[in-house]
Amino acid sequence: MSATAAPNSIALVPIGRVRSPRDEVSHDEWGDVRSRIHLDPTRFEVDALRGLEAFSHLEVVFVFDRIPVDRIEVGSLHPRGRVELPKVGIFATRQKERTNRLGVSRCRLLAIEELVLHVADLDVLDGTPVVDVKPWVARLGPRGPVREPRWITELMADYYEPR
Amino acid sequence: MSATAAPNSIALVPIGRVRSPRDEVSHDEWGDVRSRIHLDPTRFEVDALRGLEAFSHLEVVFVFDRIPVDRIEVGSLHPRGRVELPKVGIFATRQKERTNRLGVSRCRLLAIEELVLHVADLDVLDGTPVVDVKPWVARLGPRGPVREPRWITELMADYYEPR
Repeated sequence: MSATAAPNSIALVPIGRVRSPRDEVSHDEWGDVRSRIHLDPTRFEVDALRGLEAFSHLEVVFVFDRIPVDRIEVGSLHPRGRVELPKVGIFATRQKERTNRLGVSRCRLLAIEELVLHVADLDVLDGTPVVDVKPWVARLGPRGPVREPRWITELMADYYEPR
Repeated sequence: MSATAAPNSIALVPIGRVRSPRDEVSHDEWGDVRSRIHLDPTRFEVDALRGLEAFSHLEVVFVFDRIPVDRIEVGSLHPRGRVELPKVGIFATRQKERTNRLGVSRCRLLAIEELVLHVADLDVLDGTPVVDVKPWVARLGPRGPVREPRWITELMADYYEPR
């Protein structure tokens, strides 16, 4: 991946990489997956993680780097290619094939060893570049009642564990 | 902002901008703030938002573009510069002065008009570049009990409304 010369583009440099037992696209049962986030030791010291162990969960921002640029969708699609589901706009899904290819996931923080974060539930494939790690703060979750369409509740039903 | 030539850098192009009544850094009482996200009409059509109105909340990824690169912190700091609080690593905070300057916020979706999203609770200043919008999906919130240190619970107490 190289930075292009688009006039208003913003260059990110990964802060680290994910090491996961999963190396192939998988839609479900992420709940047992244990993985690690390795921060770049050439750029960070353990001081950058000081106090993070007091949080139970992280919010991780990463890049779906296995999606070739020519597969990015700017219009609408059937979620996961399932034609029985309604076609929805790319920004009404969390599909990988999106402009900027950014993913945001929550995971449990199990332990920190130097610059390595041991986590559970992280739905990210091995080798994925990580561009930010934040602590999850309860107050910053969605405010008020959450409503979502039935198709996505159904689609995500087995995401962490089988029914 | 221009893309640099770092060998493994990733170039993002904003998908839109925030229009907010708030134009200055503000730590609290974001709960009454109504703002808008304008998607770039040169790159997207309304099809990209099809079905999004069925979700009550969005997750917005944006760039803290008012932070000059020389203010980015890679080690630790006192949250909000408050020296009575413990010094914590930058990745143990959600401070703006972080590598890659990415923010992730939840907000309520009030209405959609063409390529404009009307939202509430979005803690983002006017003019901020938006790099992704996703629907909030209940199943993808943090799994299991959430734990966080007292300093951040205290710090965030007035974030949406005064006590």
